[in-house]
Amino acid sequence: MKSSYFHGGNHREAARRYGLSPREILDFSANVNPWANSLGIERIVRANLKEIYHYPDPQCTELIKQISQYLGVGRENILAGNGSTELMYLAARALLPRRALVFAPTFFEYERAIKACGGELKFLFLRESQGFSINIQKIIRTTEDVEAVFICNPNNPTGTFFLKGELLELVKITEERKISLILDESYLDFKHSGESLVREAQETRYLLVLRSFTKFFALAGLRLGYGVGGRCLIEKMAHFKEPWTVNCLAQAAGIYLLRNEENIKEIREAVNKETEFLFGQLSRITGLKPYPPEANFILIRIETELSSSKLQEDLAKRGILIRDCSNFTGLNDKFFRVAVRKREENLRLIKALREAI
Amino acid sequence: MKSSYFHGGNHREAARRYGLSPREILDFSANVNPWANSLGIERIVRANLKEIYHYPDPQCTELIKQISQYLGVGRENILAGNGSTELMYLAARALLPRRALVFAPTFFEYERAIKACGGELKFLFLRESQGFSINIQKIIRTTEDVEAVFICNPNNPTGTFFLKGELLELVKITEERKISLILDESYLDFKHSGESLVREAQETRYLLVLRSFTKFFALAGLRLGYGVGGRCLIEKMAHFKEPWTVNCLAQAAGIYLLRNEENIKEIREAVNKETEFLFGQLSRITGLKPYPPEANFILIRIETELSSSKLQEDLAKRGILIRDCSNFTGLNDKFFRVAVRKREENLRLIKALREAI
Repeated sequence: MKSSYFHGGNHREAARRYGLSPREILDFSANVNPWANSLGIERIVRANLKEIYHYPDPQCTELIKQISQYLGVGRENILAGNGSTELMYLAARALLPRRALVFAPTFFEYERAIKACGGELKFLFLRESQGFSINIQKIIRTTEDVEAVFICNPNNPTGTFFLKGELLELVKITEERKISLILDESYLDFKHSGESLVREAQETRYLLVLRSFTKFFALAGLRLGYGVGGRCLIEKMAHFKEPWTVNCLAQAAGIYLLRNEENIKEIREAVNKETEFLFGQLSRITGLKPYPPEANFILIRIETELSSSKLQEDLAKRGILIRDCSNFTGLNDKFFRVAVRKREENLRLIKALREAI
Repeated sequence: MKSSYFHGGNHREAARRYGLSPREILDFSANVNPWANSLGIERIVRANLKEIYHYPDPQCTELIKQISQYLGVGRENILAGNGSTELMYLAARALLPRRALVFAPTFFEYERAIKACGGELKFLFLRESQGFSINIQKIIRTTEDVEAVFICNPNNPTGTFFLKGELLELVKITEERKISLILDESYLDFKHSGESLVREAQETRYLLVLRSFTKFFALAGLRLGYGVGGRCLIEKMAHFKEPWTVNCLAQAAGIYLLRNEENIKEIREAVNKETEFLFGQLSRITGLKPYPPEANFILIRIETELSSSKLQEDLAKRGILIRDCSNFTGLNDKFFRVAVRKREENLRLIKALREAI
């Protein structure tokens, strides 16, 4: 399974390679929110430990009830999965697009999911000269010969972001043209929830919105995500779904997290404040060009002779893991990505980067 | 996802239906080993709780190292998954059999996995008049027009069992004919480990052996299983595999369980002893015909006017959940299945059955 090498977050592999203990590594390579450990998730997992001896509810009945209340969408419009990744693959299997549009650069698993089902890829390259942003009309023009479009909003790793109004223009066209639009909102919890298209997705036939507990809620290791779409599409995907992919502890944690909404706003503010701070600090390092962030990570271009793989190696030796972005289609060995962590850790990153550059 | 209704183990749904708390239900419907809670799994999960904030290792490196040592097979011959169910679906996707042979009755998910990939089913009916057992030569004759064969050994729900020598005759033929053989050993931990074909699988091209932590180790809620096969087949399946399906706690628990082999034999003996006891008691109830068990569950025929669904309902009202087997292809509304639990619970079952029949 080569795909793992295409991702951040493998701090165990990095630890092995550099002779460190995994706990010594400060991981900026995975976009997981370090504030989430104040949410009481461990307590809930501990309280539900006896559940490990029972099959998980394959329908995720209680979890879906909670998601439904949280989002204000119908239960029949929701399908839970082993991270949003399961839903991406499920969508590809259910829809079998012969040709699908993906951004370059973007999250790698869309490409892999499409190819695994025999689909062909059409890349829409985001231009660095335009700060990796792209006009929604340009996307619409590019959808003419595809059966599906995968969009990550905010986009990983560029951080570029479409407002709801822009996306609704695209949805109008994809619905008319019967093109499936898979809109990955895995990072949207860091933005204002009013920008989400989950409510609109209920009334559509071709739009699937993906949400994740991996980033904002930091449940990366437990695996939880879900999809929201029209009833027809959700039923179609459920037909292909394996029964027990969402384990019992992930279900319990998900229910708990969405019941305690009041913490979410507070944490969002803390992350966004620290994101601004880190962006400001990175901007002051000569030889680095950070792109303005719209989520909890920052894409950075190296403007010196140094390559991203060399920089990754230099920092790893000091116990700091960044995401070398050279293997993203559309980027090269001058790009890396860092997640936003807490102040003290961000200062360690800044210091290490200053010394390495 | 209708498939959930085809399985046992949904004690939460039963609790809702009969107005009980899930903890009040004594679940004989899922074949999960109640002795496993003495293995210290909860302690290990608790010790690894902080891992939930990190992506799981997509390669399951440490887990596979441990499985490799435990089984005495090469690491490159092993693929870990979200229960053995993930591997069944993965095998179907990688092999795309146009026609596949499955027993009737057997575990329902083979059928669903094959159909999800557009494959056709050929059922080999196990005859009640022959105690649901079948000659290996009969199977060999039936494989002529199929591209894959799915066998559960011991078979769920009939409990019928092939010795290693018999299966090796079949493997010889399937290898010659290039027919994929998916041999599900999910219940083999209850038998002598010498009966497993995992070592032989390494040297084959068309044999995939599936193992599970769901039954013997009772990790039903955490989700862990794996497949063992020739390097070529494992690589092919890995190509289709989604990256993070095995959560971090399942990986930690799996590593721990296989490191502590000495407990396994002891627990196996306890289960087998109690299985004999329960079988003996069931045999003494007029109106019930239990089939000799080869794992931790017993298939039973009702020889009175009562239907299996009525019996299930009667017992559920008393907080006892059995598996109505009427929806197994090849069975009817006279069959039900019970898992073997501890003495006191088995006595409660026996008492309730005596009263209901």
